[in-house]
Amino acid sequence: MADEVVLLDFWASIFGMRVRIALAEKGIKYENKEEDLWNKSPFLLQMNPIHKKIPVLIHNGKPICESLIIVQYIDEVWHDRAPLLPSDPYQRAQARFWADFIDKKIYDSGRKVWTTKGEEQEAGKKEFLDSLKTLEAELGDKPYFGGDSFGFVDIALVGFYSRFHAYETFGNFSVEAECPKLIAWAKRCMEKESVSKSLPDRKTVYEFFAQRRKKFGVE
Amino acid sequence: MADEVVLLDFWASIFGMRVRIALAEKGIKYENKEEDLWNKSPFLLQMNPIHKKIPVLIHNGKPICESLIIVQYIDEVWHDRAPLLPSDPYQRAQARFWADFIDKKIYDSGRKVWTTKGEEQEAGKKEFLDSLKTLEAELGDKPYFGGDSFGFVDIALVGFYSRFHAYETFGNFSVEAECPKLIAWAKRCMEKESVSKSLPDRKTVYEFFAQRRKKFGVE
Repeated sequence: MADEVVLLDFWASIFGMRVRIALAEKGIKYENKEEDLWNKSPFLLQMNPIHKKIPVLIHNGKPICESLIIVQYIDEVWHDRAPLLPSDPYQRAQARFWADFIDKKIYDSGRKVWTTKGEEQEAGKKEFLDSLKTLEAELGDKPYFGGDSFGFVDIALVGFYSRFHAYETFGNFSVEAECPKLIAWAKRCMEKESVSKSLPDRKTVYEFFAQRRKKFGVE
Repeated sequence: MADEVVLLDFWASIFGMRVRIALAEKGIKYENKEEDLWNKSPFLLQMNPIHKKIPVLIHNGKPICESLIIVQYIDEVWHDRAPLLPSDPYQRAQARFWADFIDKKIYDSGRKVWTTKGEEQEAGKKEFLDSLKTLEAELGDKPYFGGDSFGFVDIALVGFYSRFHAYETFGNFSVEAECPKLIAWAKRCMEKESVSKSLPDRKTVYEFFAQRRKKFGVE
């Protein structure tokens, strides 16, 4: 029996992007079901009753939730091709550490940049750039975070690249001016079809966030 | 060469307890270095420059940070005995999901119970008990979260048991009255020496938190 793989997703979600990239890296065919996050489907609530969030991967009827957990699941099930996590336990722990750092630092500070203004936005901007600089230092001169091949940490981070244009416009700054090596890394990732086809267009993302900002009454 | 294993730890840390239990389950000898969290050692800052937090496991000179990542590392390195994560990828994903749920829900709501009073404390108490009830439902009638054997989710949660007495006293409630099966599970875990020797005495924990509450000016 062929694997039945369904992804409950939302186009602008960096968490959804991670799963899309991992599935593309492994060459897995799947059905992408777009969710309306402001009117969630009963199916999503049934598949992820605890967090009620996308992405959810449904593999042969069984749901897996939380993006980094899904990416590890994909890597473990389809272990015969395109390894995403390193095989060495220490390197695996390092990869998990940096992916966790991204979840703890980048998402929330990025959110502050587009949902606030004034002092709060400045604080968010500083935190966002400081965290990116920490990641850039960890990247160093390697082509990818894990070394010569694209993997787990790259997947955890690269979706944010589709938001940089929006953040930069709202926050009036340039990531490239502050973190040139990180932008070079992002462009390197974008040369991979698994990434470029999984990330939305930066202008569409900007317009989406601009509308959300208006709704939040930020400007 | 024998493995050199050092743990930078703090006795009351539930994150430290996770690592202690995992090491005990695997029968690994190690040196426990107690940190003063209000005057962190230069060695801790050097070993965990990003988060500057315990626990840090140092294995043959190389540091691993973040408790759940450390427990997975221990399970992967010493894979020949006492498996902590299930071998099936779907069950592994489920174990990671619930450990992540514990990190996202139990720590912060528990913190609210002991660091606040009045309405804020009531809200923390409700959130804390709601999350424990969700976990109790997931446990069901199984002896341990993973089934018949003690493992990853048990390790992620059981350290909190040493704090229940403190939370209950400050918040004037009984976890056992609300979640009897969860308390039966905790007592079952405490029958294991790996757990009972890794958890501090509940009265010592209560006194520690009572002092901290005073310092915070909560009462």
